[in-house]
This record gives sequence, structure tokens and C-alpha cells, in this order.
Amino acid sequence: MAKVRWVRAKKPGAAPGALEFVGKQKMMTVRLRLIDYDERGLNEVEMSDVSECFPLKETPTVSWINIDGLHDTDIIAKLGDAFGLHPLLLEDIVNTGQRPKFEDFGDYIFVAMKMLTFDKEDGHVHSEHLSLVLGPHWVISFQERLGDFFEPVRNRIRSGKGRIRKMGPDYLLYCLMDAVVDNYFVTMEAMGERMEALDDELMGDPGTETLQAIHAMKRETIIMRRAVWPLREVVSGLDRSESKLVRKATSIFIRDLYDHTIQVADTVDTYRDVISGMMDLYLSVVSNRMNEVMKVLTIIATIFIPLTFIAGIYGMNFQNMPELGWHYAYYVVWMVIVAVGVAMIIYFRRLKWL
Amino acid sequence: MAKVRWVRAKKPGAAPGALEFVGKQKMMTVRLRLIDYDERGLNEVEMSDVSECFPLKETPTVSWINIDGLHDTDIIAKLGDAFGLHPLLLEDIVNTGQRPKFEDFGDYIFVAMKMLTFDKEDGHVHSEHLSLVLGPHWVISFQERLGDFFEPVRNRIRSGKGRIRKMGPDYLLYCLMDAVVDNYFVTMEAMGERMEALDDELMGDPGTETLQAIHAMKRETIIMRRAVWPLREVVSGLDRSESKLVRKATSIFIRDLYDHTIQVADTVDTYRDVISGMMDLYLSVVSNRMNEVMKVLTIIATIFIPLTFIAGIYGMNFQNMPELGWHYAYYVVWMVIVAVGVAMIIYFRRLKWL
Amino acid sequence: MAKVRWVRAKKPGAAPGALEFVGKQKMMTVRLRLIDYDERGLNEVEMSDVSECFPLKETPTVSWINIDGLHDTDIIAKLGDAFGLHPLLLEDIVNTGQRPKFEDFGDYIFVAMKMLTFDKEDGHVHSEHLSLVLGPHWVISFQERLGDFFEPVRNRIRSGKGRIRKMGPDYLLYCLMDAVVDNYFVTMEAMGERMEALDDELMGDPGTETLQAIHAMKRETIIMRRAVWPLREVVSGLDRSESKLVRKATSIFIRDLYDHTIQVADTVDTYRDVISGMMDLYLSVVSNRMNEVMKVLTIIATIFIPLTFIAGIYGMNFQNMPELGWHYAYYVVWMVIVAVGVAMIIYFRRLKWL
Amino acid sequence: MAKVRWVRAKKPGAAPGALEFVGKQKMMTVRLRLIDYDERGLNEVEMSDVSECFPLKETPTVSWINIDGLHDTDIIAKLGDAFGLHPLLLEDIVNTGQRPKFEDFGDYIFVAMKMLTFDKEDGHVHSEHLSLVLGPHWVISFQERLGDFFEPVRNRIRSGKGRIRKMGPDYLLYCLMDAVVDNYFVTMEAMGERMEALDDELMGDPGTETLQAIHAMKRETIIMRRAVWPLREVVSGLDRSESKLVRKATSIFIRDLYDHTIQVADTVDTYRDVISGMMDLYLSVVSNRMNEVMKVLTIIATIFIPLTFIAGIYGMNFQNMPELGWHYAYYVVWMVIVAVGVAMIIYFRRLKWL
Amino acid sequence: MAKVRWVRAKKPGAAPGALEFVGKQKMMTVRLRLIDYDERGLNEVEMSDVSECFPLKETPTVSWINIDGLHDTDIIAKLGDAFGLHPLLLEDIVNTGQRPKFEDFGDYIFVAMKMLTFDKEDGHVHSEHLSLVLGPHWVISFQERLGDFFEPVRNRIRSGKGRIRKMGPDYLLYCLMDAVVDNYFVTMEAMGERMEALDDELMGDPGTETLQAIHAMKRETIIMRRAVWPLREVVSGLDRSESKLVRKATSIFIRDLYDHTIQVADTVDTYRDVISGMMDLYLSVVSNRMNEVMKVLTIIATIFIPLTFIAGIYGMNFQNMPELGWHYAYYVVWMVIVAVGVAMIIYFRRLKWL
Repeated sequence: MAKVRWVRAKKPGAAPGALEFVGKQKMMTVRLRLIDYDERGLNEVEMSDVSECFPLKETPTVSWINIDGLHDTDIIAKLGDAFGLHPLLLEDIVNTGQRPKFEDFGDYIFVAMKMLTFDKEDGHVHSEHLSLVLGPHWVISFQERLGDFFEPVRNRIRSGKGRIRKMGPDYLLYCLMDAVVDNYFVTMEAMGERMEALDDELMGDPGTETLQAIHAMKRETIIMRRAVWPLREVVSGLDRSESKLVRKATSIFIRDLYDHTIQVADTVDTYRDVISGMMDLYLSVVSNRMNEVMKVLTIIATIFIPLTFIAGIYGMNFQNMPELGWHYAYYVVWMVIVAVGVAMIIYFRRLKWL
Repeated sequence: MAKVRWVRAKKPGAAPGALEFVGKQKMMTVRLRLIDYDERGLNEVEMSDVSECFPLKETPTVSWINIDGLHDTDIIAKLGDAFGLHPLLLEDIVNTGQRPKFEDFGDYIFVAMKMLTFDKEDGHVHSEHLSLVLGPHWVISFQERLGDFFEPVRNRIRSGKGRIRKMGPDYLLYCLMDAVVDNYFVTMEAMGERMEALDDELMGDPGTETLQAIHAMKRETIIMRRAVWPLREVVSGLDRSESKLVRKATSIFIRDLYDHTIQVADTVDTYRDVISGMMDLYLSVVSNRMNEVMKVLTIIATIFIPLTFIAGIYGMNFQNMPELGWHYAYYVVWMVIVAVGVAMIIYFRRLKWL
Repeated sequence: MAKVRWVRAKKPGAAPGALEFVGKQKMMTVRLRLIDYDERGLNEVEMSDVSECFPLKETPTVSWINIDGLHDTDIIAKLGDAFGLHPLLLEDIVNTGQRPKFEDFGDYIFVAMKMLTFDKEDGHVHSEHLSLVLGPHWVISFQERLGDFFEPVRNRIRSGKGRIRKMGPDYLLYCLMDAVVDNYFVTMEAMGERMEALDDELMGDPGTETLQAIHAMKRETIIMRRAVWPLREVVSGLDRSESKLVRKATSIFIRDLYDHTIQVADTVDTYRDVISGMMDLYLSVVSNRMNEVMKVLTIIATIFIPLTFIAGIYGMNFQNMPELGWHYAYYVVWMVIVAVGVAMIIYFRRLKWL
Repeated sequence: MAKVRWVRAKKPGAAPGALEFVGKQKMMTVRLRLIDYDERGLNEVEMSDVSECFPLKETPTVSWINIDGLHDTDIIAKLGDAFGLHPLLLEDIVNTGQRPKFEDFGDYIFVAMKMLTFDKEDGHVHSEHLSLVLGPHWVISFQERLGDFFEPVRNRIRSGKGRIRKMGPDYLLYCLMDAVVDNYFVTMEAMGERMEALDDELMGDPGTETLQAIHAMKRETIIMRRAVWPLREVVSGLDRSESKLVRKATSIFIRDLYDHTIQVADTVDTYRDVISGMMDLYLSVVSNRMNEVMKVLTIIATIFIPLTFIAGIYGMNFQNMPELGWHYAYYVVWMVIVAVGVAMIIYFRRLKWL
Repeated sequence: MAKVRWVRAKKPGAAPGALEFVGKQKMMTVRLRLIDYDERGLNEVEMSDVSECFPLKETPTVSWINIDGLHDTDIIAKLGDAFGLHPLLLEDIVNTGQRPKFEDFGDYIFVAMKMLTFDKEDGHVHSEHLSLVLGPHWVISFQERLGDFFEPVRNRIRSGKGRIRKMGPDYLLYCLMDAVVDNYFVTMEAMGERMEALDDELMGDPGTETLQAIHAMKRETIIMRRAVWPLREVVSGLDRSESKLVRKATSIFIRDLYDHTIQVADTVDTYRDVISGMMDLYLSVVSNRMNEVMKVLTIIATIFIPLTFIAGIYGMNFQNMPELGWHYAYYVVWMVIVAVGVAMIIYFRRLKWL
């Protein structure tokens, strides 16, 4: 459940902008990658030191600096210094609990969002904090871990085909955000499959694990929702922003991205609806089953308890019990027993219990 | 449940505007129909190649190009090229998961919506993706499959009576959208009938199938809702749009269409309300029934268990049990048994269980 | 449940403005009444043909044309022609499924609303479609059936006392709408009485019929809600409308009407709240009762089953059962039985079951 | 439940502004009180006839005319005439079902609100209709009954201390409204105490009366809500009003009053939340209890039914039952019985039922 | 539950601005602390009398006056007099039930908010009322009790590092508010931990205490919500305020604070969601358990009741019962008993009860 928390873990009262990494510390080195390109050329470098990219700040080529790993706050602070980023922004970058956010700082634009993966093994949605900063000639992206959804974007840049090399850093920003949102669809798809599986279980013979799985799914949609809903405002903020960093040509793509974001948000809500319907159904199934159990018990008990009583009567040891001596008494008792039993069965049929 | 998903299935990270059909591939040839008309004349053609209609782009007559089948993305790409359609728009056309959408591209207007049919056999609402593009002299409509709700519109064009031949392509766009919304009412009507049938079942003797049917209905209303709610914004977007493609004379019809869209949306919500009321009622009925079952069990057990105990007492084999020797003991025991039984029945009457 | 549907039943795809009556056909002649008045005089006529009122269109006196019966679409079409009404408006008049609506056509104003009656016999709210058209010198009202709530308004016109004869057709429109809204209060009052009766039942001994009656009430409030909620927008549209057809002097009355509409809407929502509270209470009552039933069963069974076991032991026929020969064994067994019984009763008292 | 209705009971269709008292007629004389003051002097009079106050309409002193009793519509009509009040306003004054309302008539301002008292005896919130009219030099207050919350205000006027004598009639209006809202807090406090008492019952041993009391509380919060929520708009209407009747110096007090109104509204909603939580808890408690009952039954039955069966076996009278003759058979049976019983108890311990 | 009330406890009808402390009276002396600083110097004083700080009102240095304890209204009145604070503001300071509030009085700005602590011992959220007044050169903070979250802020002022000494009183106000909001995260974290513990209990073996603990948690989130939700408006009011007291340089920090406030509000809502999910799960678990109990009872009873009946039959004492004399009858009966038992078990396996 920990992920539902997403809280700010800055030492309370510490100065705003104090950099402190709050995610789970990973014992890895930070990976720094740089792709510098324009319509004519491309330069892809694995940087050993973050300062290597500083000269590119003012060159007219588009520079995409990608940082994998947020725990080395020194690197981030240096980069922030060199690119003139506000301390509060840096705080939001290392704070993995930060919710999706758009902020226009004038000289640059800041976007925070979540990368989500649905782990089919454990049925959990895993979330990774992504921060993007768009400047006049550069985009800086900060990720929590190695591995991302951006390889296709890199390949499009490398191949030089299509629009991407001809357009500015704002289009690159859009491409990165679009790649993340595209992956939301993949995540939703995986969750949808799991929901269908649960649905089949529900129609079959659901047990407590089914209920717990449905409950777990509900939690995951809460996480999805927290990642996706604020994103609507982020993208629409980007769309409505009057910053000159976002060129007019990119605007139609951002509107399209907004449309996709709404579609994801919509689907998350539909999932919630469907899941709450599944829980209602589960409860009804359990209730129905209990009813069935009760009916079986009642039928058996109602038939045999009176019969056992009859048998008990003639098991009494009174000396003066005239029936005991009658010759056909035993057969008469059997007939009574059968008659009572049949009457009961007819009665239950009428009640539609049988 | 698959339909609830409606997700974008573009390869994540692929370039925006990359055309890839995501619906279920149908092994049929794409059907291309063209109706070209103005107040004086009409020309209806089954095209063998999409390029046949390109010359009509600039003629002042109204040209309605209808494409049945979205899987042949080449045709769509060619058409898009010839009519200057934006790649993102083409992506939305082939993406059958696209939600209802309105977008004004300046030179043309794009509308995406869903055609819904309620299949009485399987009780499901089937949805088909419809895209409409309105240009200065033309309307292009894209449908997933053969068969549509547009035959009455075609007949009105053919007959030449009424308003349609006298007005522009914007009125044609309205007529197509109106035909789809009219069919929503038909769908709602069919669903309403089914709900009434379920309601009757509920008042009679509902079983687990009833519950599952109610649940299924709820899902279908979720699908309806996803098709209808965004449509409100689509139609109101069209109404408020200041595009010169939508003439003033058409505006009152679009407002009327908006009114109908709201009415459908309203009805969908009422259905949801009614269905959730039905589920509550079902649960109450089950709960009541369990109560009845319990009462029967309790009455029988409560009457006979003490009586059986009495019989058990005198079935004991102690040598010294004075009552066993008394002459009328057996009859006294019977009287006690009857008295206890009658007392119980009076007691249950007081509790209003009988 | 049929009334919950209120759907448009135009033949799908038919030309907009095509007149087709969709209510239940009534085998009666349409009744046409005309009241023509100004401050000095009054002329009340039962018209045999609709064309009789056409000359009054341009006279400065206020003409109120009332049509009872919507099935004769010819009359409505003729009237529409003579008064220059838009075909879409006529469609809304005959479409009894049309929701409450306000539309300003410039030369005239259209208002659609519902007249509601609560039938105490069958416990249903019956709804009748009412359309009102306000022109410069006339008001036309269309009703589904004979009989309305307008007799007091007619009497006020006839008597010539009060404000009504001195003011224009807009005030007449207000008076008609006010008469309808006033009757909503009567309807609410009748529903409220029924709810109180149900509430008393709930506090007494509610059965399944009570539940079904509560459910039925809930449905009726859904119908009320669909008639009343959109009316808020209708009246506020009329209030905010800048049409010169609505004079300033009438404006304060319309605001008052708006206030009443809100009050009805509010009350409907309160009723829904109260009803859903009643359903919760019902379920709790049932649940409590089941608990009582279970307790009785458990007490009886728990006391007598062990006792019967004891009796069963000494009913065994082993040859070597020393207790059987002891002289006071029987009495000891009785003492054990009484002791166990008393212990059980004390135990149940501690559990507060008794 | 009657109070939930609050409906307009004007004869439907009667002319707007027709005065008819709709509350419960009280056989008392209407009490007319007048306080006329300015910074220098004060004149407090019990009027025998309403016309006594008419001359004060134009004097620059502040005149507060208070009417206790709404059933004598003549007095109200006369007063309305003399002070030029609109007939619709008078209708709202005598209509005790009128919801809280603010209306600016230009020359005067009308405010309707509810005075609430929580009767600890019967647990009901009683509501009294209060109408306030603010003119240039006067305030008229209309109450349903004798007795109000305004005595402290009168005392402040009489004592001449504080701000009240120095400020205008708008400040007096504020003071009256503030006194009413202050009493809402008292009402809430009393309800809160009752809720705490119910909460303690819930934690102890709740019965059906507890549930009904919780339900009753919920109804009372519905009444509170209907009185308080519209008041927010009333006060904010007064605040935003650009009437020159409300001086700038009073504005900050009205904002403060608004803040209090929001706080009451907020608290009412919190109460609703808490109450619905209490109902959930009650249901869980009942459910838990049923579980306990079932467990007791099941444990007893499950232990003794098999044992009774064993005893039954050896109570059979077959001639050839070898065990019956074995010397230690009886003891063996006892051992089996004890073993089975102990095994059952161990089993139930494992299930954590014991 | 008392804390849910937060009501205004001013004597109803008392003059607005009348100072009366409504919290729980603490028998302690009020502590008055003053920190006066600018970029060059710092002066920290424990004041014995409130008037010591009056001369600092006009000096250009930033003066932070902190009052711990609200019960001595004289001190607050004196301070209010000296700094020209409005009586209504003072009323809000001593009224510990005041909800979070922002008010711009022109010469100074008033902010009320709640300091929250989650007491892990008793599982309650404790709330303390905090009022902040921002003037041109000073900030006054009023707290209910000794002990606060401001020590880190004081240390930052003392150390002279960072931004705080260089900036104005508006930045100090921000720092204080930020410290409070930071502590909300700590509170949320503590609540989150408790929720996880409860979640683990739920997955294990939840009892009534678990349910009551969940319910208690829900109440605490209601309290959190009432503290946090209005704060959003407070901070956004501060952000949008056009007061010249809030300098532009501080504005970005306030926006950041707003972002954190939203994040807390969001998390509170998520907690509510999760808690209501936990309650549903609890009910399902109880329902499932009851089902299990019922099954055990039904299986045992259904197997043994018929068998006991068979045994009962042959315990009857009729003289003429031919089976009794048959040699193998006893063994046959045993075989029948075993057969019936096995059949029952197979049947229950089919029903998946075993």
C-alpha cells in the first residue's frame, strides 16, 4: 500500500529548495546521456561528467540531456546551477513523491509526470518519477531508474526520418510525454486483461482470493488515477501556456496528447466503475451461496427432525404403550414417515426451493 | 468486457500520425461510395479506386465520399494526401478506440463518434467507429464496416425533396450525425425493453441469472455513456465553433441535435439510476428470502427439538424410572408434547412468523 | 417503467422537422380554444377550425390559443405555417418525449415543460407534455389531453380583476408556467403523504410490499427529477433572455418562478435522500429480524441438543452400564439436565440474548 | 417527517402575490414591537396598531419594526402598502415554506431565513420562518411565533454601548442575521452531543432504537442542510450586492457572517458524514453479532449431533448387536465420545472460533 | 468525537468582535517571544509584557512576535490595539473552532490554519489553532499551546544562512505556513503506517476491534480534511491576492506551497478512498466467514441428522419389527449409514463445499 502515500519527505521545516532524495536509494551510478541534433546532424554521447553538456546550453542545436538516477543530488544541483534552474524545481525533481505538475518559469518550462508499469507477476502498478525541463535549445529529462519508454524516440532521432529532427525541443518534449502516455495505454491494457480474468473467475466459482484480487485491482486504479488525473491539467497547462518556448506548430500535437490523456483518465474511471460493479457482484454471489447453503440445511433438518421425533416417541419405554403391541404398528409408522417426508418435499417444491 | 477498454493501440512511442489499424481485421474489400449533388443534379457512383473522387474536391457541388472499412490504411493515406488532411487526424480515423471528438483544423472540421447497436440476442451494445470530415465542398465519412444508418439520408438526397439538396455540406454533416443520434434512441428503446423484462423477473422470482443480466446491463450503460457523454462536447463544440464551414442556417439544426444528445445522455444516466435501484432490490429480495428460509428452519427446529428431548428422556433405560410404570404416563407425555407444540405455535404467531 | 424512457421516437434518419405524433393516440377530436383580451374587453371562443384564429396574429390584443390534443399533426402544421413557426419547433411540440426546453427563435419564444399529476390510486406520477409559444401579441399552448391546471388563470382573465388583463402575453406565459409549477407542489405534497405512510409502515412491521413501494416511490422521484431539473435552466433562460418579447415588468415574476422551481428541485432531491434513507432502514430492519430469528433458533438448539445427547446416552442398550442399575441415577440425570439448562440460560443472559 | 416538505401551499393557479398564510394557525394576537433609535436616543414601543409606525418610514432614525405572528395577513398587507413592499415579497413572508432567499428590490432588500431550535426532548430540529426587510431607515422583521434570539441585540441597542447605535439599519440587519447564525452553532452543539451519546451506545450494545435514533438524526441534518445551504448564497448575495443600502463599513461584518455560514454548512456536512459512518458501523456490529450467534449454534450442534448419533446407534434394538454384550463396550463408547468432542474443540480452536 | 464539532462558541447574539476564549483553558502563563532581524542582525527576546514589542511595529527590521496561549484575551486585545487589528480578526484568533481562513484587511493580512499531530498512542489527530498576521514589517503568530513546528525556522533565522534573513516578512509568513504543511506530510505518513497495520490485520484475522479502528481512522481523515481542504483556498487566496504586502519574489514559494497543499488534500482523499475500501473488505471477510460457519454446520447437520433418524427407527420398541430379528440387520444398517454418509460427502464435494 506504500505507494498510495506519495508524500513529501523533506525534513519538515527545512529550507525550501533543500535537495534531499526521498526515493529508495539504488546502489548504482547515475547514467548521463546526451543527444545533440538538428536537421543536419546528430551527436550521441554517454557523458562521464555532467559538466560536459554545459557548453551546449546556448548552441542552436537541440540537446537532450537524460539523467537516469536521482540519488546523486550533487549532479542535479550542478546541472541546476549551470542551466539556471530554480531550487524549488530541483526539489520537485528529486522528490519522487511529487505529483504531476506543470510550471512555467519564464525561461524554461517544468513538467513532472509518472511512468507506470503494470507488473503482471505481482499485479501491482509500479510508478517511476519523471521530470522534464524544456529550455530554448534543450530538454533535460530526469528518471529514477535505468530503463525507459524512450528508445523508440531515440531511434526516430537517430534515423532522421519523420518530423522530429526538423522540429525544436518543444516537439521533443511532446514526443517524450507522448511516449509515456502511450505506455499508459499498454498499462491499461494489461490491467484490463487481468480484470477480464477476474471477471471470468467471478462467473465461475469466486473465493476469498478473488475478492482480494479485486480489491488489489481497485488500489491499483487509485494509483493510476493519481498519476493520470493531474496530468490532464499538466497537458492543458502546456497547451494554454503562452510561453514562446512552445511553438505554434507543436500546439496541435499537444492538443492530441491532451485528447489521449483524457482518454486514459476516462478509462481509469471506467475501470473503477467496472471494479466496483465486480465487488457488488461478488457480494451478491456470496449472499446467494449462503442462501443455497441455508436451503440445504433447512430442507434436511425440516424433513428429518420431525421424523426423528416420531421415531423417538416409539423409542420410549413406558410399560403401557398400546401401539407397541399392535401388529402393523411398525408399518403404519413407516407409512406416516414416508407421508410426512413426501408432504415436506411437495411443500419445498411449492416454495421453489427444490 | 473487452469493449470497455477502447484503448489506443498504436505501437507506443511510434511517431504521431503513424497509420496502423487497431480494430479487428475484416477480410473484405473496402467499399468506396460517392454521392455528388447540388440543387439541380445528383451523381451516385461506386468507386473502384479512391482517386476517382479527387477531382471533385474543388467543384462547387457537395460531394459525399463514404469509406466502409478502415483496415486498408493505404486508401486512407492517399485520400488524406489528396484532401490535405493532417496525419494526426488520419491516426484518429483508423484508431477505432478513439473517443468522440471534435476538432477544427481551419480548412476542415473533424468529428469522431460511435454508432451503437443493441444486439437483442446477446444483450450487448456493439459499437462502430465513425469519422466525419467536413470540407468546403465535401464530406468524407469513414466507417468500420459495411451497413450503416445512412440509407434514409441517401434516399432524401436521391428524392431531391426537402431541404437537403438545397443546403451545403455542413447540413449533410448534420444529417449524418442526426441519423446516428436518432439511432441512439432506438438503442435506448431496446435496452429499456430489456430492463422492463428484467424488472418483471425481479418482481417474480429472480435467480442468479437475473443478477448477472442486471450486471451485464450496467456494463452496457457504461459503454453507452462513454459514447454519448463526450458527444455533448462534440456537438456543442460544433455549435460554438466560429468556423465559416458551418453556415448560420445550419446552426439551429445543430442546436436541435445538441438538445437530442443531452436527452440521450440524460436517459443513459436515468438508466444507470434505475439499474442500480434494481440491484438494490435484488439484494433485498435475496435477503428477504434468506429470512424466510431461516424462519422455516427455526420454527421446525424450535418445535421438534424440545419434543424429541422429552421422547429421549423416556427412552432411557434406567431400572428405576417410576413414570415408566404409571398407567397413563404415555398419554400424559403426549399431552405435554401437544401442549408444548401449541404453545410454540402461539408464540410464533405473536412474533408474526406464521 | 415505460415513462422513464421519454425517448424520441421519430423514424430514425427522417428529415428533421418531420411531424409525427409519438404519444399514445387518443380517439378524440382536438379541442381548440381561443381567449382574446385586453384591458377593456374579452372574447372567448371555442374554434371549430384552427384558421379562425389566424387574423388575430397581428391585432394588438393578447390572444391565447390553446390546443388540447397533439395527434392531429395537420392542425399543428397549419398553425405553424400561419404563425411562422420553425419545423424543428413543431417537431418538439408533437414529440411528447421532449425534455423541458427553452429556445429563443427571435420572433417568438418556445418553452416545453411537463405537467405532472400524482395518481394516489396506483402511486404513479403521470406526465403530460406542454408546449408554449410566446409571440408579440399571442401565446399558443399545446397540451396532450383535455383537462389542465389553467382554469384559475382563465377565471382571472374572465373576472378582469388583478394584473393579468393589464399586462402583455409574456405575463400570460408566466401565469401558465406558474400554474404548472404550483401544481408540482401539489404533486410533491401527495408524494410526501405517501412517503409518510410508508415511513409509518417501516416503523411498524415492514414486509416485501413495503420495500417494493419504496422502490416504486424512488422511480417516481426519478420522473419528477427529469421534469423539474431541466426546468431550472428553462426558467433561468427565460429570465436571462434579452428578447424584447419579455418585458421588464414581468421579469420580477419570472425570478419568483425561478425561485419556486429551485424549491421544487430541492424538494425532489430531499425526497430522494429520504427515500434512500428509508431503504437503508428497511435493510437494517430485515437484518435485525434475521438476527432475532437466529437467536431463537440458537438458544433452543443450544439448550436441547446437549440434553438430548444425555438422554441418548442412557437410551443405549449395553448390557453392562452400571448407572442404569443405580437407584437414584434417573433423578441425578434430571438434576444434571436442569443444571445444564440453567447454566445455558445464565450464559445467554450474559450475552444479552435474553 | 412533515418538516422535510416545506412546500408552497398557495392555492395553485392563484394570482401571484395573493396573501394566504400557510403555517399552522396560532390563536394568538399578533405582537407588534417598535424600536426607534439613533446615536443620541432610543424609543421602544409596543404598538397596538401597525399604522403607528408608518410616520417613522422617512425619519432619519433607525426604526426596527418586529412582527411576531404571520397569520393576520391584513396587518402584513397594510404594512406592505405603507412601506411600498412588492406583493411577491409579502407572499414570501407569509409562506412559511419559503426557502432562504435574498432579493434586492432596489428601494429595499429582502432576506428570508430559518430560525432553528433543537428540541432535546423529542430530538427534532424545529424551524421558524424569519423574513427581514431592509429599507433606507428601517428594518422590518417578521417571525412566526413569539420568542426569538434577538433579546441580546435589543439589550445592546438599549444599553447604547458598542457599535450598534452608531451604525445604520444595515448593521442592525447584520446583527439580526448574526444572532440567528450564532444560534445555529448552539443547535449544532446540541445535535453533536446527541450524536456522541449515540456513538457511545454504538460502542456498547446498540439495539433497534439506536438505529432508529441514528436515522432520525440523519433526517434532522437534512432539515439543517436545507436551512443552511441556501443561506450561503443569501449572505454572499448580500455581500456582493451593489445596493447603496448596504454601507461599506458593514461589509466586513457581512463577510464575517458569510464565513460563519460556511462553517455551519461545513459542520452539517461533517455531521452527515459521521452519521452515515455510524450507520455503517451499526450494520457491521449487527453482522458481527449474527456471526457470533451462528458460531455458538454451529459449535454446539457440530459437537453434539455426531455424539447423539453414536448414542442413537447403541440405542437400536437389534437382537444381534455383538458390541452390546461386550463388557467394556460402554466405556469404550464414552472414550470415543470424549475423543470426538475433544477433536472438535481442537478443530474449532484452529479455526479461531473459540 | 468532540473534535469533529469545531463550532463557534461565542455567546449567541453577543456583539461581533467580543473576545472570549473558547478552547480548553490551560493553567499556564502565556509565553511571548520576539525575534527581530534583518540581513545584518538578529535580536531574540523572551518578552515579559506584550507592550515591549510595540515600538518595533514601525522599524524596517522584520519582527516576528509569537504568542503561545490564547486564554489571556487581555494580551491579545492590547496587541490588537497597538497593531490596529480589527476586532473580528481578534475574535477569529481566540476562537479555536475557526476554520482555515484568509482575509486581506488592506494594511495587514490574516491567515488562520490548523497544526495537526497524529498521536500514535490513542490513534487520534490532535489539532491546534494557529493564526498568523502579516504586516508591513512584522508577523504575529498566535498558538494555542507551547511547542510548535517552528524550531527549524527559528534556527534558519539564527544561523543567518540561506534566504530567510534577506527576505521580508511575507517570506517569513510563507516559511511558517510551509512548516505547518510539511508537518501534514508527517501526520499523513503516521496515519499511513497505521493504515498499513490495519490492512495487514484485515488480511489476517480481523475482529471487531479492527472494524472500530478502521472507523476511527475514517473519523480522523474527516478531521484532516476539514483542516486541509479550506487551506487550498487560503493559500490560493494568498497567491492571487494583489496586496503589496506579498512581494513578487515570494510568489513562487507560495505557488509551491499551494502545490503541496493540493498534494496533502489529494492524499487525504486517497486515504478516505482506501479506508472505505478497507471497510468493504472487512464486511466481505465477515460475510465470507459466516458462510464458512454455515457450511460447517450444514455439512455436519446434513450428514448426521438423517443417520440419527435411521438409528432412531431401530430404537423403536414395537413388538413386531421383523428387521430386529434378522441376523445381519445390524451390519446392513451400518452399511446403509456408511453409504449415506459417503453419498453426502460426494454431494458436498460436487457443490465445492469441501
